[in-house]
Amino acid sequence: MVRVHFWGTPEWSQQLADSLSDIAECRFGEEVDPNTEVLAKGRPAEEEFATLHALKAVVIPFAGIPVQTRELLASRPHIKLYNLHHNSADTAEMAVALYMAVAKQIVVRDRNLRTGMWSEGSFMRSGSGGSIRAAGKRALVLGYGAIGRRIAKACDGMDMKVTAIRRNGPFDDRIRPLEELDQLLPQTDALFVALPLTTETEGLMDGRRIALLPETAIVSNIARGAIFDESALYDALRSNRIGGAGIDVWWNYPKADEPCFPSNFPYHELDNVVMTPHVGGASDATEDDRWRALADLIRGIEDGSAKPASAELGY
Amino acid sequence: MVRVHFWGTPEWSQQLADSLSDIAECRFGEEVDPNTEVLAKGRPAEEEFATLHALKAVVIPFAGIPVQTRELLASRPHIKLYNLHHNSADTAEMAVALYMAVAKQIVVRDRNLRTGMWSEGSFMRSGSGGSIRAAGKRALVLGYGAIGRRIAKACDGMDMKVTAIRRNGPFDDRIRPLEELDQLLPQTDALFVALPLTTETEGLMDGRRIALLPETAIVSNIARGAIFDESALYDALRSNRIGGAGIDVWWNYPKADEPCFPSNFPYHELDNVVMTPHVGGASDATEDDRWRALADLIRGIEDGSAKPASAELGY
Repeated sequence: MVRVHFWGTPEWSQQLADSLSDIAECRFGEEVDPNTEVLAKGRPAEEEFATLHALKAVVIPFAGIPVQTRELLASRPHIKLYNLHHNSADTAEMAVALYMAVAKQIVVRDRNLRTGMWSEGSFMRSGSGGSIRAAGKRALVLGYGAIGRRIAKACDGMDMKVTAIRRNGPFDDRIRPLEELDQLLPQTDALFVALPLTTETEGLMDGRRIALLPETAIVSNIARGAIFDESALYDALRSNRIGGAGIDVWWNYPKADEPCFPSNFPYHELDNVVMTPHVGGASDATEDDRWRALADLIRGIEDGSAKPASAELGY
Repeated sequence: MVRVHFWGTPEWSQQLADSLSDIAECRFGEEVDPNTEVLAKGRPAEEEFATLHALKAVVIPFAGIPVQTRELLASRPHIKLYNLHHNSADTAEMAVALYMAVAKQIVVRDRNLRTGMWSEGSFMRSGSGGSIRAAGKRALVLGYGAIGRRIAKACDGMDMKVTAIRRNGPFDDRIRPLEELDQLLPQTDALFVALPLTTETEGLMDGRRIALLPETAIVSNIARGAIFDESALYDALRSNRIGGAGIDVWWNYPKADEPCFPSNFPYHELDNVVMTPHVGGASDATEDDRWRALADLIRGIEDGSAKPASAELGY
C-alpha cells in the first residue's frame, strides 16, 4: 500500500480515499505523516523534504507547476514530479471566451447598452464593424500541451487558420518549433498563450516580440502574467499598437483578500482589455474532476504508466 | 443585361457593378429605375411594387427577412425572394461569444477587477467555481441554417454534445424536428437560438417552454428578440430559474439614435445577462463579403442556380 497525503474538501477527500482503498493508504489534513510516499501539494516547502524520507513523488494538483517547486525538485531527482490536467478544458475555454469578448467588444457594448446607448465607445478602428470576425483569421497557439490543444480545436471549430508552437517535436505544417516564433508573430491575428512559466518562458513576450504583432492582433493569456513584459504589453495596448487583449493571469495578486489592481500599470483603464481574476481553471466540473484525475494519476504512479511532468517540459 | 438596383457604400457599389459588368446594368442610390428587375433592399415599401413592373427578384441584403417583406412578397409569387448569408460566421461567433461571456461571468468579473476586486459578485450558484464548463455540456441549436450550422461546429470544437433542431429533414441522431423541442429543452445546458422570425417562430420560446429548461441553462439569442416572450424570459432570469442569457437581439430599438433600453423590462439590471446592441452581423469582414455575396447571388439568379429563400423556410 502506497502512503499518500493530500488536501481537499472533506467530500472529495473521502471519495478519493475510497476509490484508492485497494492500493493506497490515504491521509489528508494538516499533519503530514513522515512516511508519506506521494505528496499532492502545489507548493511544498524545502523543510518538508528533510522530514519526508520515503517521499518518491510530488503531485501538483493543477497544471501550472510553480517555478520554486520545479527548482526544489530539480535538485532531488529521486522524487518524481507530476501535475494534473483535469481542468484543461476550463482554461482553454477561458482563453476562447476572452478572445471572443475582445473581438466582439462584449464588455464595452454591454456596459453601454445598460445605459441605453446602442452605438457608443468602440475601441476599434473604423471599418471594423465594431467586431473582428474569427473565421478565416490566423490563430497562433503558443504552447501545445493539454490546454493549447483544446484551444486549437476550438479555433478549428470557428474556422480559424491555426498554427501552434511547442518546444519539442514532432512538428508538421501546423505545429512549429519555438524557434519560429518571431517569424510567425507578424502573421498572427489571435495569439493564445498557453505556456508553462519557466525561467525560459518568463518575459518571452517582451517588447520586441509584442511589436512584431499586427496592429489588429488580439492577445489572450490564460497561462502566467510573467510570460509578458508587463510594461511593454500595457504600452502596446494603450497606444493601440495591437488591437486588444483578454487577460486572466497577472503580475500582481491580492494578499489576504485585500483589493488590489492586477498590475502596476493601469490596465483597468483600457477599453481594449478584458480582464478576469485568474479564474480560468475553475468551473462547476473541476472539483469533481480533480479527485478523479488525482486517483487516476496515483494509480498510474503505482503501476508505472503515469508520465512525469518533464523537467525539460514538453509543451 | 439584367437591370439591378441596390444601396451600398460608393466603394463597394462600384466594385459590385464592375464585377457584374458582363451580365448586369447596376444602378445605386435613391432613384430606382422603373425598369429594375432585381432590387436589393431589406424593406421595400408596398408602393414600390406598383411602379416596378419588370421586377422579378428582391434580394434582402442580410439573413433575417423582415416579416413585413415576407408578407408583401407572399402575395406576389412572380417576384422571387432571396437573402444573403455573407455574415453567418459573424452572427454564429456572436452567439458563441455571448454564451461564453455568460458561462465565464466575463462582464461581472471584468467590472469587479477594474476596481481591484478579485472575488466579488458571482451570479452563479455556489459550487460552480464561478464558471460553467462548456465541454461535456449539452448544446441545443434551435434553427439549423447557415448560422446554426456554424454554431454547432463551434460547439463541437469545444467538445459540447450538440443537438440541432430544424423544421424540415433530413433528420438523424443529431438533427431533430421542431416537434421534439419540448422533449429536448429539459436536457439542454446551452440553448442557441438561430431561427428566422416568422409568424410561426414569434413567441415560440414562451413562458411554458422557458420553464422546461434546467435551472443552470444558459440561453444565447442572436436571431430576433420576438422569438422569446419578453416578460417570461425576464422573470426566469431575474428569479434565477435559468442560469443566464446572452442577448444580441431585442424587443425595443432606438428611433433616430435616441438612447433607449432594449426592453420594457429592466434586463439591464441583471448580472446574469450579457447584452449587446444587435451587432452580431457586423465585422471587419462583412462589408467586403456583402458585395461579393451579392455579386454571386445575382449571377445565380441569372443562371438559375440561386436558391430562393423559401416561403416555407427550410431552417
